[in-house]
Amino acid sequence: MRAVTFQAPGEVLVEEVPEPELIDPGDAIVQIEATGVCGSDLHIYHGRVQIEPGFTIGHEYVGTVIEAGADVREVQAGDRVLGCFQTACGRCWFCRRGWFHKCDASRTFGHGAALGALQGTQAERALVPNADLVLRKVPAGMSDEVALFAGDVMGTGYHAVAESGLRAGDVAAVLGLGPVGLCAVQAAKASGAAHVIAVDSVAERLAMAESFGAEAVHLSEGDPRAAARAATEGRGVDVCIDAVGHPKALDLALRLTRKCGTVQAIGVYAERCELHMGLLWIKSLQLCAGHANVIGHVDRVLAMMSAGVLDPSPLVTHHMALDDAAEAYALYDRREALKIVLKP
Amino acid sequence: MRAVTFQAPGEVLVEEVPEPELIDPGDAIVQIEATGVCGSDLHIYHGRVQIEPGFTIGHEYVGTVIEAGADVREVQAGDRVLGCFQTACGRCWFCRRGWFHKCDASRTFGHGAALGALQGTQAERALVPNADLVLRKVPAGMSDEVALFAGDVMGTGYHAVAESGLRAGDVAAVLGLGPVGLCAVQAAKASGAAHVIAVDSVAERLAMAESFGAEAVHLSEGDPRAAARAATEGRGVDVCIDAVGHPKALDLALRLTRKCGTVQAIGVYAERCELHMGLLWIKSLQLCAGHANVIGHVDRVLAMMSAGVLDPSPLVTHHMALDDAAEAYALYDRREALKIVLKP
Amino acid sequence: MRAVTFQAPGEVLVEEVPEPELIDPGDAIVQIEATGVCGSDLHIYHGRVQIEPGFTIGHEYVGTVIEAGADVREVQAGDRVLGCFQTACGRCWFCRRGWFHKCDASRTFGHGAALGALQGTQAERALVPNADLVLRKVPAGMSDEVALFAGDVMGTGYHAVAESGLRAGDVAAVLGLGPVGLCAVQAAKASGAAHVIAVDSVAERLAMAESFGAEAVHLSEGDPRAAARAATEGRGVDVCIDAVGHPKALDLALRLTRKCGTVQAIGVYAERCELHMGLLWIKSLQLCAGHANVIGHVDRVLAMMSAGVLDPSPLVTHHMALDDAAEAYALYDRREALKIVLKP
Amino acid sequence: MRAVTFQAPGEVLVEEVPEPELIDPGDAIVQIEATGVCGSDLHIYHGRVQIEPGFTIGHEYVGTVIEAGADVREVQAGDRVLGCFQTACGRCWFCRRGWFHKCDASRTFGHGAALGALQGTQAERALVPNADLVLRKVPAGMSDEVALFAGDVMGTGYHAVAESGLRAGDVAAVLGLGPVGLCAVQAAKASGAAHVIAVDSVAERLAMAESFGAEAVHLSEGDPRAAARAATEGRGVDVCIDAVGHPKALDLALRLTRKCGTVQAIGVYAERCELHMGLLWIKSLQLCAGHANVIGHVDRVLAMMSAGVLDPSPLVTHHMALDDAAEAYALYDRREALKIVLKP
Repeated sequence: MRAVTFQAPGEVLVEEVPEPELIDPGDAIVQIEATGVCGSDLHIYHGRVQIEPGFTIGHEYVGTVIEAGADVREVQAGDRVLGCFQTACGRCWFCRRGWFHKCDASRTFGHGAALGALQGTQAERALVPNADLVLRKVPAGMSDEVALFAGDVMGTGYHAVAESGLRAGDVAAVLGLGPVGLCAVQAAKASGAAHVIAVDSVAERLAMAESFGAEAVHLSEGDPRAAARAATEGRGVDVCIDAVGHPKALDLALRLTRKCGTVQAIGVYAERCELHMGLLWIKSLQLCAGHANVIGHVDRVLAMMSAGVLDPSPLVTHHMALDDAAEAYALYDRREALKIVLKP
Repeated sequence: MRAVTFQAPGEVLVEEVPEPELIDPGDAIVQIEATGVCGSDLHIYHGRVQIEPGFTIGHEYVGTVIEAGADVREVQAGDRVLGCFQTACGRCWFCRRGWFHKCDASRTFGHGAALGALQGTQAERALVPNADLVLRKVPAGMSDEVALFAGDVMGTGYHAVAESGLRAGDVAAVLGLGPVGLCAVQAAKASGAAHVIAVDSVAERLAMAESFGAEAVHLSEGDPRAAARAATEGRGVDVCIDAVGHPKALDLALRLTRKCGTVQAIGVYAERCELHMGLLWIKSLQLCAGHANVIGHVDRVLAMMSAGVLDPSPLVTHHMALDDAAEAYALYDRREALKIVLKP
Repeated sequence: MRAVTFQAPGEVLVEEVPEPELIDPGDAIVQIEATGVCGSDLHIYHGRVQIEPGFTIGHEYVGTVIEAGADVREVQAGDRVLGCFQTACGRCWFCRRGWFHKCDASRTFGHGAALGALQGTQAERALVPNADLVLRKVPAGMSDEVALFAGDVMGTGYHAVAESGLRAGDVAAVLGLGPVGLCAVQAAKASGAAHVIAVDSVAERLAMAESFGAEAVHLSEGDPRAAARAATEGRGVDVCIDAVGHPKALDLALRLTRKCGTVQAIGVYAERCELHMGLLWIKSLQLCAGHANVIGHVDRVLAMMSAGVLDPSPLVTHHMALDDAAEAYALYDRREALKIVLKP
Repeated sequence: MRAVTFQAPGEVLVEEVPEPELIDPGDAIVQIEATGVCGSDLHIYHGRVQIEPGFTIGHEYVGTVIEAGADVREVQAGDRVLGCFQTACGRCWFCRRGWFHKCDASRTFGHGAALGALQGTQAERALVPNADLVLRKVPAGMSDEVALFAGDVMGTGYHAVAESGLRAGDVAAVLGLGPVGLCAVQAAKASGAAHVIAVDSVAERLAMAESFGAEAVHLSEGDPRAAARAATEGRGVDVCIDAVGHPKALDLALRLTRKCGTVQAIGVYAERCELHMGLLWIKSLQLCAGHANVIGHVDRVLAMMSAGVLDPSPLVTHHMALDDAAEAYALYDRREALKIVLKP
């Protein structure tokens, strides 16, 4: 079958790879009908996340189950499904507590040997281990391009909000309006935030956040701190979501948030950095970090997307053929797209 | 000044009563500009809740502070304010835990000596004790008729949802579509419920719930249990709000709710009744009951109403003059109104 | 092999039954070294819970894994293990939320076809499905008779406390001092309850609760309501655990508990009953019910038993041979034992 | 009356100061019977926290109410009381949510004009504003030296544990065994921690933690990370309390804690520092910081101390006369004491 493989930094290739085969009785094979290109794929493309040349990439996907192992119960051949970007075992200490994203045996699609040697989904077909936990049926009437957000980007936006302790009537700020930040804006509004302040420095992204109901504030031309004060009688926001992953964003988050509030760092941090612990301490803040528990949230995300309360479709800026993956990556790398959907 | 007083079951009178005066340094006097007639007033009108003849009734109110005691800090003379239907001391064991509705020293407006001998707000002016906890400034641009919902009916709808543990993406059912039930429908939708099943047997109320985004199901002509199953792959709703207060509603709530779900009985219960404890037990349900912690929720409710996320204005069916209170009560008693707003 | 089978109400038999065999790759076979007789077994013995004649009973067990399926990962042959009284699939909607006790595919040991046709553990060997979720290694140094409490009775006592929202420094009451109630007393004390009021009418049980640090109050000769008031400046207890399962206990629980407190009905209810909803409502109580999520709690329970913080050993009043099961049941039926441990 | 005043860095003086007088109707005057010297006092003594020369210091206190304003309800003249180290108004936005430690109008005893110009309690008598929130009656039979811990040090140890989300059966680590760390050890054990790892480099402190039931691990001579792994099958502790307030402690805390665990920084941070955000992120940790909500927790702390579940008395190493305050501070500065209690 044909698949998008990593070759070298800056180079992906659509080539022939072996067909996936069932290994465990909990596995399923999915015929991919749409698969997204994600910011994480770009880390691989840039060589910052290193994977083996020839490894199939991609981890956002919608398709149809064409084969299911004997132990698969929740889906069956013929079901139209979407999947989560990582697997979980359902039995380890972390899974037993519902922290599927920290499963001791988790594998991530399309991230090479380091994350479980699980071939990616930018391919005609993909092997999905632990299908009962990883796959969900696509609700009737939901388009491919909406559904594939549930298992990654929208799941991440939802997680950022749901795990922040935001309550209906609160005020939130979202820093960074890439796909995750924009989904977090939607999730905050849909979860009852009375006001969402959305901060970025790209006009199109600010405009989209505004169209989702947020107050858009330009990072440098506007005044995010003044906006936070104005929306909260001077207190600061109840919850601030850092969807950037940079010390400057984190610093701003600490400043925007009211005493006893929560800073939710969903943006990726990989290094040491300087943090104003004095500010965190004097304001009695709570700082949460880490990637999303997509498996834990996917049912609720799907229900909200199915009801139209969450709607990622405006984020899809490009539809392309799988065979045009090289062009898609180049285009995405030039920041000309928010979300590219590839169709095999 | 003129005020609406209870005289005898079925009889209220607009008569001259003494002017309110500041007693404690935490008191304020509010010039009433709008005051609602509520289902609780009807209990008094019917004599089921007994108060002293000549006592001023009413407990929903918006107005302007005309005098504030020396210790009042959060509002001052000239502020346009709305108030909560009961007071709280802010210092007792229950207030210290945020359970203002169970304050050991709480007084309820317009409910006679039994609930603290605090004259009601269906009057030209009202004394408001502990003004810092009980009053809030009306957000700019909010109409009287919207604002007066914050301190009672919408606060109650919000409480029903917020204290039920509903999470964004859940499915809720609301039984009974009087003003509280309709506000609960709005609160559930605004808090991220993916689907709300609204049950009643009055066509107009079902239509209004539908206009708020709910699936309206007639109690007897429809099939609430089938609707709950259909919306949840057969599991039952995550949260069921009983806004009726009758054993039959409670029984239906137990049946509609999924295993490990919550039944929130915001409707009034005053007696013993038969309950299917076996069902509660086998389904591992959680049954919550009691009136709303309006003081605890009013800031968030106001923020949501100010953002337009909650909008009780469709519930206001009648505007009348305070002097026409007798007619208003008669009309409300005939169930011809959802919410009547009186203007002094 | 030999096993205890139900024959008819009042009649159990130790007879030869077929050896268990692995069916699924997640199964394990455990050589039983100790198995308890439980109150639930008595329901079967009395015929109130109906199972097929010849079905092996029992669901509390400690032993050694002698065979494990290819997919079992958390334990292996040779491991000394204890097990939970019911199984869970780890993948259904309820398991994914950590509600293993309400798993859609759960099976209960020794309860006949109605609860999953899973042969019981009062036998020389037992088949354990989903071994990764159901079994745990016995911590070093823990005796059989302590370990077998983790998967049922102590797990239930822990659940009653943990799911009640009790916080360190709170005051709790436990109604009914059978094995579950006594374990709840221990769990409450160990979880930081400043004071535990233990109510029963059997002197030995009251004495044991007292030895666990509770204030023992005789149901009729003492005054539980006065004790609750005295321990809480008149407010009532923060949490009341009903380990009886009778309307009178439930009524007492509603009366003992303070406003906004929790009543946790861990005692079994199977029928409709009269409940003072007016009291529940006016006190804004929360009523929780249902059997324990033992799989969800077993790790913490084991850790506390291993640390000696929980110690069920005083509850073991009898050690008997599996072959004497008929005598054991008769003795237990006469209420002469708290916990009988059978050794094959 | 006589009081301990700050004069200059390294110099305190017992001198004659004006008698306190009631100002607001919510005030009380307390005759001080015991008052502690605390680590925060040392910051003033060292000049790191700057206050006005001549200002009375001290904020831990037990005594008897000798005068109460007209609006004080929860205590009265003649009551033996203990107090919290800071005041709260009970009405502001933060108090209404139970975050009394972040009250907009809070004042801290003995910390000069910057923290509310409230004279300290190392004096014969002290003015206590908002007495209903700040004071509590000393439970019968509790000694002065135990009681004065409730309003500061033990309240802080309790807060560290209670706000960390620790559940009965969890494993905790406490870094830094000064008075707060030692109280946190007690609070963790009393709240059901199955195991507590206590880390410091002072032998006496390690020994005391051990006597409280912890596993004592020397910071450099022992191996805290190995101890955490050994106690948790390699996962790391569920909760780590940093009672040091130094980047090295914080770094160790991040390393000791398991995925999805909580780091509770109760030790004081006032500056920027380097933090391993990558570790926080990849482990999905939650970092909480800030000083304790003593008013919010004092009832539960008192209940536990009254029950003997928490017992700070071993921490009291010195009893001295108020007149010997200069000597007490010098001695405390030389780190020869854990807790000095002064008696006027």
